[in-house]
Amino acid sequence: MSFTVKKLVANPKIKNPVLIEGLPGMGNVGKIAVDFMIESLKAKKLYEIKSHYFPNSVFINERNLVELPKVSIYYKNLKDKSILFLAGDIQPTDERSCYGFCEKVLDLVQDLKAKEVITLGGIGLPEAPKKPHVYTTGNDKKIINKYKAKQISTNLYGFVGPIVGVSGVLLGLSSERKIPAISFLAETLGHPTHLGIKGAREILGILNKNFKLKLNLKELDGEISEMEEHGSDVEDMLKDLKQKVSGKKDTTYIG
Amino acid sequence: MSFTVKKLVANPKIKNPVLIEGLPGMGNVGKIAVDFMIESLKAKKLYEIKSHYFPNSVFINERNLVELPKVSIYYKNLKDKSILFLAGDIQPTDERSCYGFCEKVLDLVQDLKAKEVITLGGIGLPEAPKKPHVYTTGNDKKIINKYKAKQISTNLYGFVGPIVGVSGVLLGLSSERKIPAISFLAETLGHPTHLGIKGAREILGILNKNFKLKLNLKELDGEISEMEEHGSDVEDMLKDLKQKVSGKKDTTYIG
Amino acid sequence: MSFTVKKLVANPKIKNPVLIEGLPGMGNVGKIAVDFMIESLKAKKLYEIKSHYFPNSVFINERNLVELPKVSIYYKNLKDKSILFLAGDIQPTDERSCYGFCEKVLDLVQDLKAKEVITLGGIGLPEAPKKPHVYTTGNDKKIINKYKAKQISTNLYGFVGPIVGVSGVLLGLSSERKIPAISFLAETLGHPTHLGIKGAREILGILNKNFKLKLNLKELDGEISEMEEHGSDVEDMLKDLKQKVSGKKDTTYIG
Amino acid sequence: MSFTVKKLVANPKIKNPVLIEGLPGMGNVGKIAVDFMIESLKAKKLYEIKSHYFPNSVFINERNLVELPKVSIYYKNLKDKSILFLAGDIQPTDERSCYGFCEKVLDLVQDLKAKEVITLGGIGLPEAPKKPHVYTTGNDKKIINKYKAKQISTNLYGFVGPIVGVSGVLLGLSSERKIPAISFLAETLGHPTHLGIKGAREILGILNKNFKLKLNLKELDGEISEMEEHGSDVEDMLKDLKQKVSGKKDTTYIG
Repeated sequence: MSFTVKKLVANPKIKNPVLIEGLPGMGNVGKIAVDFMIESLKAKKLYEIKSHYFPNSVFINERNLVELPKVSIYYKNLKDKSILFLAGDIQPTDERSCYGFCEKVLDLVQDLKAKEVITLGGIGLPEAPKKPHVYTTGNDKKIINKYKAKQISTNLYGFVGPIVGVSGVLLGLSSERKIPAISFLAETLGHPTHLGIKGAREILGILNKNFKLKLNLKELDGEISEMEEHGSDVEDMLKDLKQKVSGKKDTTYIG
Repeated sequence: MSFTVKKLVANPKIKNPVLIEGLPGMGNVGKIAVDFMIESLKAKKLYEIKSHYFPNSVFINERNLVELPKVSIYYKNLKDKSILFLAGDIQPTDERSCYGFCEKVLDLVQDLKAKEVITLGGIGLPEAPKKPHVYTTGNDKKIINKYKAKQISTNLYGFVGPIVGVSGVLLGLSSERKIPAISFLAETLGHPTHLGIKGAREILGILNKNFKLKLNLKELDGEISEMEEHGSDVEDMLKDLKQKVSGKKDTTYIG
Repeated sequence: MSFTVKKLVANPKIKNPVLIEGLPGMGNVGKIAVDFMIESLKAKKLYEIKSHYFPNSVFINERNLVELPKVSIYYKNLKDKSILFLAGDIQPTDERSCYGFCEKVLDLVQDLKAKEVITLGGIGLPEAPKKPHVYTTGNDKKIINKYKAKQISTNLYGFVGPIVGVSGVLLGLSSERKIPAISFLAETLGHPTHLGIKGAREILGILNKNFKLKLNLKELDGEISEMEEHGSDVEDMLKDLKQKVSGKKDTTYIG
Repeated sequence: MSFTVKKLVANPKIKNPVLIEGLPGMGNVGKIAVDFMIESLKAKKLYEIKSHYFPNSVFINERNLVELPKVSIYYKNLKDKSILFLAGDIQPTDERSCYGFCEKVLDLVQDLKAKEVITLGGIGLPEAPKKPHVYTTGNDKKIINKYKAKQISTNLYGFVGPIVGVSGVLLGLSSERKIPAISFLAETLGHPTHLGIKGAREILGILNKNFKLKLNLKELDGEISEMEEHGSDVEDMLKDLKQKVSGKKDTTYIG
């Protein structure tokens, strides 16, 4: 299984890195949160991953040029540690590609001596939550306790089903490599066109505090109140969001 | 096709083993029956099988930690023979993985000199049966006659279609290895959220008698009468069942 | 891609063989016709083909025992030529398996110096035809002209779409091996539970005449008039048919 | 991944070639346009590509003979350059086959020193557009500016989703080979049986002017007005079109 990796920074001076994943998924909660952090922190792109195991399509970027689907690893050096962000337009197309992709990502971050893996995602509800709860699970009690907070529920057993895709498999495979891994899952409306900005906001609040990221989350608050006024007008939302998060949405099948 | 097997007991002293399979399937009849026997008999875990051919997701266990999907072989040594139980959260994802997985399982149990293979499953009906019938088929007349009993029908031809998945393929591949194999199939409601406890109860009765397992099936009777009172409240049922059988159910898509 | 072939007759004395294919498909027209000829002519089984590329299930045979899905080649030696019949319970599961399977079959029959390949199938219509038309196409004008007859239409272009599965791919791959190949397609009701006995009857009439098979097609006429009286009672039909054709039908999902 | 290529012209004298792709897709816009150019310009077939990664079916051609699905590269030598046309009945069956196929095509045209790649496609709308707009995107600003014209919009970002299939992937993979590539996408009705002749007409107008092809587009105008009168009578349309474009349509599942 072949994934092509392009390294873009020769000597990134990574120390004690923590990987934070946010790829497309339920409500795009993880993607919105990670793209917002990359933009806000001006994180630099370190790796670009392409593969024939990604969807057979191209995306149109903000320069109106096409690009093959790719997933990138960005980094931001903080005082005592580096944050690596896993971001992209897509997830691998099938189950085995998902495993292969996650192994590849873990190879890369393990070479950088990754200390922790954090995955972000959404829990789809039949109705949009007013104030989304955040749930946490992981592969080790210690890391779950480390990120414990009042607003986080750690009681998922019997309540939620399997965590599907990269957000789940990264946790499981980290286990086998002895890397502590945790997932933050925010409630969101389980509808294909819903943007889980509120859920992403909750997760960002937790990460902001834990990693002292100094994010200005009020930028997202503006988006949320606008979304609440205009309801379903996802198109407009996306245009507004596009300076802050590079969220893409399939409006039409083209080919 | 690669399946990773971890051996957990160095010297299990297996003698004349019989493999009993019960993975997720129609009404989870087989899974409920096998998980109940593992719990009741305090069977020990001998092998753990993981694979990139399993679903790309993680499950949340009773300790609120994530686990990659796995299938395990447990064993219980009786007076004159050992019972091996094949149990797990999932079935392989596609047709070829199913064949590959079954070959792997048969490699393992053949190394242990397996004498018989027994698979358990459900036959989906449009309505929940009051007293589910049990049907038997297999790869050899002798083994079918051995387990013959009043309440078991052996006349499936023309009445039921193919047996799909591990419960079926294990029978067919056992044939090619000259291992006698039989399947016990209990009627159940063919609805995705239905738990076929009644059907599992019928199969357990047969196995209990044949193998002198001394199972206390009244524990299940309690669950059944509760289920009949509360009807569709599968969630509550599952919570009650979780000490006895580690049955898991997908309530929400998460990722 | 691996297909396991078992040879069952050491020295079958095949001469100038013609392969006639009839696997499950639209209305099971091809399967009904070929299974009827095998039974009527007491054709002998020459090869048995099994594969992990076949569906992951087992079928219950008339002895109430399970069997892995298989496709067999039977033969019947006539005065001046041999007929090879390709019959079975299933088609390969996906597109590439279909190509691989057809190449394997052509390897086998080419070793026997096959002179012609004939595939049988159905054309699904929205209503059951009173007197089904038979259409013919192939990979060579000569073979189409050879089997020309009043009741056969050879004008399919623009009228019918692609021929899907083994019935189609065998024709195309025969082309590349310079084996003349033809397909007889009979109209039938395009409904999943419909048995295209009438369509099969029309095709059998043509083959009976061309190959002087001395088939007693009145046996099928009985089935047809019964079917017309009892309409949708496919179950009963199947039971009646089971001495003559080993037609199987999936009534329930089991596993 | 194996694609069989047959070369049909020994010494085609290709100079500065531009590849124009038009395979089946949304409204068959690309296919109609490319098939029309091949017919009108009497382009010669240079390569024929077959593969087990194409659909497992055969098509019935205008001679009422079956053919395995194939994609062909035709060429037409103009004064200062050659046009290569990529045309066929099908697209590869899955995502990875699509990538493998596009790499193969680019290998072939790169051997011929291809200067540009042009892909044609449709953008599906909920209603048939009266005068379809044409949109352009590509892998390089220079080629987009080169083909700029009043009637072409180059502002697709945020408006259209990913370009799926060969039309998209060819652009992306050309990028990695430093071949400038552009896509012309015409609006069309997003309905499975709709023939996007109007959209193809618009694209042909642009190509006609840019490459001085001297196409008689009035032939298509006749088809369009006939289509507008007879509305949904796609069958008749197809018969009329069949001398000009070899458009095929699946009317029935056969096999």
